[in-house]
Amino acid sequence: MTLTDLLPATDVTACCEPLTRESISAENAGALASTLKALADPTRLRLLSMVAAHVDGEACVCDLTEPVGLSQPTVSHHLKILVEAGFLTRSKRGLWAYYRLVPGALDSVSRLLVTI
Amino acid sequence: MTLTDLLPATDVTACCEPLTRESISAENAGALASTLKALADPTRLRLLSMVAAHVDGEACVCDLTEPVGLSQPTVSHHLKILVEAGFLTRSKRGLWAYYRLVPGALDSVSRLLVTI
Repeated sequence: MTLTDLLPATDVTACCEPLTRESISAENAGALASTLKALADPTRLRLLSMVAAHVDGEACVCDLTEPVGLSQPTVSHHLKILVEAGFLTRSKRGLWAYYRLVPGALDSVSRLLVTI
Repeated sequence: MTLTDLLPATDVTACCEPLTRESISAENAGALASTLKALADPTRLRLLSMVAAHVDGEACVCDLTEPVGLSQPTVSHHLKILVEAGFLTRSKRGLWAYYRLVPGALDSVSRLLVTI
């Protein structure tokens, strides 16, 4: 299941429904909570922001450790959580791992939050 | 500090800056992470969604316990976290507490996520 699958389907027949609507399902709430848990950490938010701010949209783990003031294994652990949650992709080139934002991933969470 | 304070200021002189930009500050990352932690729980997401879906935008704690299948003290604990994080307001009338969405609170988090 991708983040986009969690967005409610557009229903053109829904114009005349009563004011109440279905609330989020337990299954979708669980999936969204897991995604938000991956984001709900100051270091991980800073790492995502640093990758996004990087001049070519890609950052080497070796560029990220010093700004956050943590060891490389700790930074790699946080980056792994962001990869598993679908926010970053990782590619290994030579000695280093490089990270890039997944296009639209933050947008999907953002849209889900205003439709829950 | 409100959620809106965390949004980056619009800087009209920034048009000719290099492609890189400032990443989120450690202080703002900490504040946003705390807010996301309040949301990163399946029960709290369901409670927010139920309050939002309620016919008059307000729900009594007595209406919320049965759908989530938890005790009233547990539901009240989750609602307290959402009030403290600025997503709900609480008013006591008679025996029961009533909860209402804070207008714009989810929108603010949503906008922060796409600007980190």
